[in-house]
Amino acid sequence: MKISELSELSGVPVATVKFYIREGMLARGEALSATRAEYGEEHLSRLRLIAALADVRGLPLARVREVLALIDAPLDDPMETLGRAVGALPPYVDGGRDDYPRAREAIAELGLTYDADFTAVAQLDEALRALDAAGLDASPAALARYGAAMRQVAADEVAPMGAMSPPEAVAYAVLGTAMYEPVMLALRRLAHHHLLAERTAHDPVR
Amino acid sequence: MKISELSELSGVPVATVKFYIREGMLARGEALSATRAEYGEEHLSRLRLIAALADVRGLPLARVREVLALIDAPLDDPMETLGRAVGALPPYVDGGRDDYPRAREAIAELGLTYDADFTAVAQLDEALRALDAAGLDASPAALARYGAAMRQVAADEVAPMGAMSPPEAVAYAVLGTAMYEPVMLALRRLAHHHLLAERTAHDPVR
Repeated sequence: MKISELSELSGVPVATVKFYIREGMLARGEALSATRAEYGEEHLSRLRLIAALADVRGLPLARVREVLALIDAPLDDPMETLGRAVGALPPYVDGGRDDYPRAREAIAELGLTYDADFTAVAQLDEALRALDAAGLDASPAALARYGAAMRQVAADEVAPMGAMSPPEAVAYAVLGTAMYEPVMLALRRLAHHHLLAERTAHDPVR
Repeated sequence: MKISELSELSGVPVATVKFYIREGMLARGEALSATRAEYGEEHLSRLRLIAALADVRGLPLARVREVLALIDAPLDDPMETLGRAVGALPPYVDGGRDDYPRAREAIAELGLTYDADFTAVAQLDEALRALDAAGLDASPAALARYGAAMRQVAADEVAPMGAMSPPEAVAYAVLGTAMYEPVMLALRRLAHHHLLAERTAHDPVR
């Protein structure tokens, strides 16, 4: 396809596509003449990944590059590759500690794997300490409800990964993590709204 | 309690507590002398709400004020009060349209309530169009998996609201929506990590 088609299918303006090529984030097309190049499906999926991270989720370009580098050259340990790539996504919290006791306890209660190097551990730790400070319920029973729902969602999401190459798996994990988060949060708010609207309709006095 | 205790229990510095009082966001304590005032539980819970929104979730003060105004003077329609208060939370998307066809279809498929004025509708619409642009699965079957998990979470969350006064319900809804979102997202990432780590341990060749 031509660069104009690539732009149209991805929703990324031609000037921005050219910027990503100049920056080495997107490969050049195959040169057909001095002014025309041909782009393929792999260009489109790469561009969609860059656009999703940079434009939709607002990642700084340095973070996008970090993800692309891990796709282009995965580390020997696939879990570390995935962990680092997903760790490039927000929220950005103070990490780098050896241990996160608040998260460690909760993760043990939930029967999940604790690995202090995985960024989501620091994110959970911060979120739980915020619940405590706000006086909200962060008991094992309350967390178990969220944990069960998220485990069910996650099982469906990781299922296709067994059949993927390491670079495919990294791109899938980062894109899936980033792009379904806003969907899930909007659906939670819509479910609240629906349940309350239903209740109000049945019991208009309240 | 003294202002120093209020500060300690909420984790908000004394200077910031005084700022919120000056700004009219937190009521003055009961004056005991020219330089001492007494604060109660209602000051603590108000301060925890402000801190959760402003410091933890990073809401602009104008948005925090919007939430506080809805708690102090709920509108006649409780659903509209809740909708506006929760709508003060991020993500901030282009709203204000009369109809969101992409979200409308998905919401109908999920059997939820469609109300174009509720901000989560615009948020879902944007999130779904981003999935489409990224070439990710936004089919009814894929969304149903997220919808089912979120409905289950939401049912537990709205259950206590029947027994609350309108101001309590607004504070609970905003605080709960804002503060459990990071918990849920971290748990989803931890569940991915756990499931993949388990798989790698059982099948070390992959």
